[in-house]
Amino acid sequence: METIEVLDPFTGYDIFKLACPSRRVLDRIADRWTALVLFALQDGTLRFSELRRRIEGVSQKMLTQTLRGLERDGLVTRQVFATVPVTVEYSLTPLGASLSSTIQGIRTWAYTHIDEMDAARDAYDSGAGAKA
Amino acid sequence: METIEVLDPFTGYDIFKLACPSRRVLDRIADRWTALVLFALQDGTLRFSELRRRIEGVSQKMLTQTLRGLERDGLVTRQVFATVPVTVEYSLTPLGASLSSTIQGIRTWAYTHIDEMDAARDAYDSGAGAKA
Repeated sequence: METIEVLDPFTGYDIFKLACPSRRVLDRIADRWTALVLFALQDGTLRFSELRRRIEGVSQKMLTQTLRGLERDGLVTRQVFATVPVTVEYSLTPLGASLSSTIQGIRTWAYTHIDEMDAARDAYDSGAGAKA
Repeated sequence: METIEVLDPFTGYDIFKLACPSRRVLDRIADRWTALVLFALQDGTLRFSELRRRIEGVSQKMLTQTLRGLERDGLVTRQVFATVPVTVEYSLTPLGASLSSTIQGIRTWAYTHIDEMDAARDAYDSGAGAKA
């Protein structure tokens, strides 16, 4: 079977290539906290503490790291207000909003198909898969 | 600022909850090799060796693990043919094809926006971000 090389006709990028810059987008998405932060901020600006409450299970350290990565990549902006104590707010940039919309489908897919995935997993673990 | 709880109206799932089963879908996607295998198989069935050539940089071990995970979750089927040497072919299941379509947008987004992400990263690294 022949594998056809599908380059993007406009940019020449190919995500299957090790050195392709587009791999970095995958690496950014390929992080559960990144996706959850993008989902959470889609409804609007949130403070650090609000984000942390919204995304159950994220540690302060992981959330800080995730937000810094997103800020570095131009996906999230950080605004500091000189209140006492200081208020820090995070919002999606237009670039971040566009990535967030792009991955919204994953959330909907998850809600719709998790039962099928779970059933498949149960079948596999009960031996159907082990025989293959 | 008030955070509005957005449950899926049909299933009651909420990806922001630690114990929500939909988190497992994120964990499955949150892996660069998983996404690349789903992309690669979207064009049709491939043998293990073809997959390995297609996805530059994946090790035999990582590809084996990724395929096993996808098979377990009902996203990929594995067919063994008694040739010499044995031929093993992988295809998307209908469930896998539906997830693959859902995440295709990420690939297109990556091709279209990687330059903006890179520019943001350069600006951040050259000090604009450090001051914030």
